[in-house]
Amino acid sequence: MASNFIARLSAAVRASDAGDTAHRDLLGRAIADTVGVAAAGWAEPAVTASLKAYEGGGARSWSGDALEGEDAAVMIDAIAAHALDFDDVYLDSATHPSAVILPAILRIDRDDDPDEILAAFAAGLTAALAVARRVGPGHYHRGWHGTGTIGAFAAAAAAGRLRRLDERQLASAFALAAAQSGGLRVNFGTMAKPAQAGLAAAAGLRAARLAAAGLQGSPDIFAPGGYADLYGADDGIADPGEDAFRSRPDLLAVKLYPCCYASHRLIGLALDARAALGARVADAGARFRVLAPKRSLEVLRYDRPASGLEAKFSGPYCIATALLDGAPGLRHFDETAPRADILRLLDRIELSDASAQDSGGDITAGEVTMDVLDGAGERIARFSRQAIPGSPQDPPSRAAVAAKLAGCVAIFESDFGRSFPLLPKVLAMPEVAAWLMPGAKEGQHGRPGACTEGFRSRRDLAGR
Amino acid sequence: MASNFIARLSAAVRASDAGDTAHRDLLGRAIADTVGVAAAGWAEPAVTASLKAYEGGGARSWSGDALEGEDAAVMIDAIAAHALDFDDVYLDSATHPSAVILPAILRIDRDDDPDEILAAFAAGLTAALAVARRVGPGHYHRGWHGTGTIGAFAAAAAAGRLRRLDERQLASAFALAAAQSGGLRVNFGTMAKPAQAGLAAAAGLRAARLAAAGLQGSPDIFAPGGYADLYGADDGIADPGEDAFRSRPDLLAVKLYPCCYASHRLIGLALDARAALGARVADAGARFRVLAPKRSLEVLRYDRPASGLEAKFSGPYCIATALLDGAPGLRHFDETAPRADILRLLDRIELSDASAQDSGGDITAGEVTMDVLDGAGERIARFSRQAIPGSPQDPPSRAAVAAKLAGCVAIFESDFGRSFPLLPKVLAMPEVAAWLMPGAKEGQHGRPGACTEGFRSRRDLAGR
Repeated sequence: MASNFIARLSAAVRASDAGDTAHRDLLGRAIADTVGVAAAGWAEPAVTASLKAYEGGGARSWSGDALEGEDAAVMIDAIAAHALDFDDVYLDSATHPSAVILPAILRIDRDDDPDEILAAFAAGLTAALAVARRVGPGHYHRGWHGTGTIGAFAAAAAAGRLRRLDERQLASAFALAAAQSGGLRVNFGTMAKPAQAGLAAAAGLRAARLAAAGLQGSPDIFAPGGYADLYGADDGIADPGEDAFRSRPDLLAVKLYPCCYASHRLIGLALDARAALGARVADAGARFRVLAPKRSLEVLRYDRPASGLEAKFSGPYCIATALLDGAPGLRHFDETAPRADILRLLDRIELSDASAQDSGGDITAGEVTMDVLDGAGERIARFSRQAIPGSPQDPPSRAAVAAKLAGCVAIFESDFGRSFPLLPKVLAMPEVAAWLMPGAKEGQHGRPGACTEGFRSRRDLAGR
Repeated sequence: MASNFIARLSAAVRASDAGDTAHRDLLGRAIADTVGVAAAGWAEPAVTASLKAYEGGGARSWSGDALEGEDAAVMIDAIAAHALDFDDVYLDSATHPSAVILPAILRIDRDDDPDEILAAFAAGLTAALAVARRVGPGHYHRGWHGTGTIGAFAAAAAAGRLRRLDERQLASAFALAAAQSGGLRVNFGTMAKPAQAGLAAAAGLRAARLAAAGLQGSPDIFAPGGYADLYGADDGIADPGEDAFRSRPDLLAVKLYPCCYASHRLIGLALDARAALGARVADAGARFRVLAPKRSLEVLRYDRPASGLEAKFSGPYCIATALLDGAPGLRHFDETAPRADILRLLDRIELSDASAQDSGGDITAGEVTMDVLDGAGERIARFSRQAIPGSPQDPPSRAAVAAKLAGCVAIFESDFGRSFPLLPKVLAMPEVAAWLMPGAKEGQHGRPGACTEGFRSRRDLAGR
């Protein structure tokens, strides 16, 4: 009845479990990271607007607000998780996975077995990768926002696994997720970007709820003329290998800087230079010539950003910030005007993707190099970097993850004058608690990291 | 800020009103027709399943059931309106428009001014046509279900007009509708087809609610790389003429038979033959050779249907039914096995789209012809037909609309033992009441038409 692809995907989803120690540990890391960035994002305007639209007397969001119902709560939690664009990245799946999957299964007013939640999370990661392989990387390059489109399948898989849907129900859930699959990169740079994560999370939950209640869709939504034909770009794999149907939390990248992931390797490179040449590397009139593989910088559209949001998508700005201050943090991308010393340094940074290597849009391809030149144009030093900080090739330290969580949670506490309501639930999971500061416990999470230091949230800026 | 297209669309939506007497009358016809088919569809399994998934303590559906919230109520009302595939058709807009628009604005527990509801309905019709012109007919032919995809824009426009969104908010609502735009023809023949109407209606409402609360999307979702590029098929009009931005309820077709609209012209042709040759036209071993324009029958996939659902998509079955019984009704497409005399007649019907005229998939193109042959193969008569019954070229009589409404409402009453809760609200609108049987009033709607006669709903078949 079902196509091979849907049959294999459904089987993999149904067989998902929490996995071995290493697998569980990485799922715990993703939960800690996602809960943190959602807490820090709670005062963002996309969250404020959606809370206003959907307040009610039903299910509660991660912030404890009562909303119209479970779909609305899931939508808003996912919007919050993606609001700062500081949540994790799964390049092979073309999604920010945890921001869409976790809201669909981690509910403050449900009492699911923690191991079932981990198994459902794994099912979501499995579906994200499998569907991404099926539609191919051209899907994202054409202009689709994978977190919105593929994310709906991931959330449906996770919610379907948590509800233990049978094979036919899962096929229907995927058909209904496909029917709601949307998200356009044209919406990037607006509140609709996090909204697309939220809409996908809710769509996935809705698909699973309807399928569980007996609403049947096509048993084979990937049949000819179906999902892959409409959403693909002729580079999908009709019959992906076994490795496409596995949960791979080790392929997730933790964002160490709250800006576009395409800038993170450039930041790592600048930090390498700063570590070697000292914190005053940019003081003496030095110039910086940075070369990246062709088409690996396409998303970084702003050479001289005029706002914090534009700065998130500015390669030169991120490099300048890292040279001057070290790792960029939320404070570098808030709604205050860009700092004068950062803007001045932009004149001494030359960034181009004129390298002979063609990345094909893959931001992990090849390597980036930086030549540091003195005032006379003589080269002082050269640095190169292949791995993106926080990526599977250069994983974050436990201390970095713990500091990010501590800092993010502190932002919510400062903004709202109370602790983040979801926190006790996730800290009761040993896999999550393992990512706290050593010795830290609830209400005392350790020293916030540089990534959240000095951040004044929009709520602060609005003068609350 | 906004592109010309979005600016023009938003302006047209904001300027929508109930229109002149003829316009209001046609909107009233569509409301009467949609409310009727929703009532008759209420016992269908897609509705039963979604009610089960979303029961709650919030907004009420047209049936009076309390659901999780307004989004869920709107979704389920639209599922019901499309469940029997008996709701109106707007070919130029590639949608079943009223099934997605009306649930988003006609709420049993809201108290909107009836003229504002008519104005919002007109705004929805306007958006459906404009977006359809922008993406082009290839959108549907590629495999998208326009009712799901374009329908989300139509519902957003209607809900946005009812909430009097300003220009920027409307642009955001369209950006958010685009972000949820989905629906695949691969889901046809399953409950996901009406679900796609329901999901689109709720998506449009959600887009308007979020935009009204301040969630901003792209000001220009049709920018390069945006909606038309992702969902079009290179035959859209980048800058449609003024006529694309008008509410045209006169272009809506009322379905007189509860089966695929592509079969309706064939049915009309068979009824013409029956009217001319008498009710026993098929008795004497006559044969029927029917010729249609090339590619105008693509959707009619079943030559010998095995179920009522397949029969809805069978050209020969619809012709045979019309020859034997006159206008086909709901009873011909229920879940009982197809009748033996109808199946026998299929052997004497030869249907082909081998005509030299290429319709390009347009089911209104050219004409259909029927040669009636005697047992010896001699031609007795020839009939031809251009206009689809119920279409703008051959509009339904007032009596036919009234009889359809009466019959549909009677089905709900028989299924659930109570009157349809939405009915008093719409019959209070004079534009709707004008389509009742002359002299009929609430609780006494006149004689049901043949289209609903003898129908045993699925609830009946399940033995309640």
